[in-house]
Amino acid sequence: MPRYSPSVAKLISELGKLPGIGHKSAQRLAFHILAMPEEEVKSLSDSLMEARTSTKLCSQCQNFTDTDPCPICSDPKRDHSTICVVENPRDVATMERMREYTGLYHVLHGVYSPLNNVGLDDVKIRELIARLREHPETKEVILATNQTAEGEATAMYISRLVKPAGIKVTRIASGLPMGSDLEYADDVTLSKAMQARHEF
Amino acid sequence: MPRYSPSVAKLISELGKLPGIGHKSAQRLAFHILAMPEEEVKSLSDSLMEARTSTKLCSQCQNFTDTDPCPICSDPKRDHSTICVVENPRDVATMERMREYTGLYHVLHGVYSPLNNVGLDDVKIRELIARLREHPETKEVILATNQTAEGEATAMYISRLVKPAGIKVTRIASGLPMGSDLEYADDVTLSKAMQARHEF
Repeated sequence: MPRYSPSVAKLISELGKLPGIGHKSAQRLAFHILAMPEEEVKSLSDSLMEARTSTKLCSQCQNFTDTDPCPICSDPKRDHSTICVVENPRDVATMERMREYTGLYHVLHGVYSPLNNVGLDDVKIRELIARLREHPETKEVILATNQTAEGEATAMYISRLVKPAGIKVTRIASGLPMGSDLEYADDVTLSKAMQARHEF
Repeated sequence: MPRYSPSVAKLISELGKLPGIGHKSAQRLAFHILAMPEEEVKSLSDSLMEARTSTKLCSQCQNFTDTDPCPICSDPKRDHSTICVVENPRDVATMERMREYTGLYHVLHGVYSPLNNVGLDDVKIRELIARLREHPETKEVILATNQTAEGEATAMYISRLVKPAGIKVTRIASGLPMGSDLEYADDVTLSKAMQARHEF
């Protein structure tokens, strides 16, 4: 006899595919969902598809967006001569939280990581180069990939591609502890690291 | 300017309502979902509504089920003279994992917990009493609520209601460490606790 009814087993299996959600957590979530009012489950269910279908990548910065170009890229009040390169969309949110940086972003959606089968072509580096070519007003590229071996290697690689074009390339200062993720930095550390950025 | 596009903000807020999922986890999950193939998101989204709409409570044991009565209650090979009372559906799965107990279950969907505003009428005790009245073949009620103050109080209360009907009432032995949840017990401990159950 199956331990769960088919639809519950399916739900547990689907939830268990999400990152950081093991079988026990998936069970807990599933039973919580079964006990939720139906309209709340519908709202959650709809928000999944709604977010997935209405979200695309901004043709400029590659961040997730409902409109193209995204609100940041199309904001005339921002400094369009500076592009901050980050690993993922969460990092954009982290930087914005600081309320100090007024330039644009470029989201790589990953870093060069041969051990995880992520090559240089799997992240949005080519798009960055094409963007710099189309936007000669760019004066500085700030490399804000994580302070990890992969983030460092990716920064190094981008710097080698961008510098010959005469664009200033800087690296966010490692005021952040080595081995940590940008996402978990506190605002002060992040702000200090931005101020102390050095030529790459 | 909003930090996230409206549909992403909505998704993060919906995910953040789930138990054990804080704002950071909700962000992580949301961005993972945005990067998933659309058909996988659809499958997850559908499984939520599918599980919620096709699942009802078994009229006998109050466990979640697609069919009424549930597979356990309608299984003639199980011992219909014994009912094991548990706090929630996860506990049924835990008991079944042990592969030793062959009786039926009764799911309370909570325990008496005045501090959390859960009264005796908010859990399925009345349904248990009605069930026992309709099924005079019941010889034993095993109280397997958690070894917590609330679980103990609920067991005590049920025992006082059931005993006068001449039904044997036992309590799962506290071989389980006090203050712990049934759900996290290992099979051996759980099996020992079942064997050492004592008259209540």
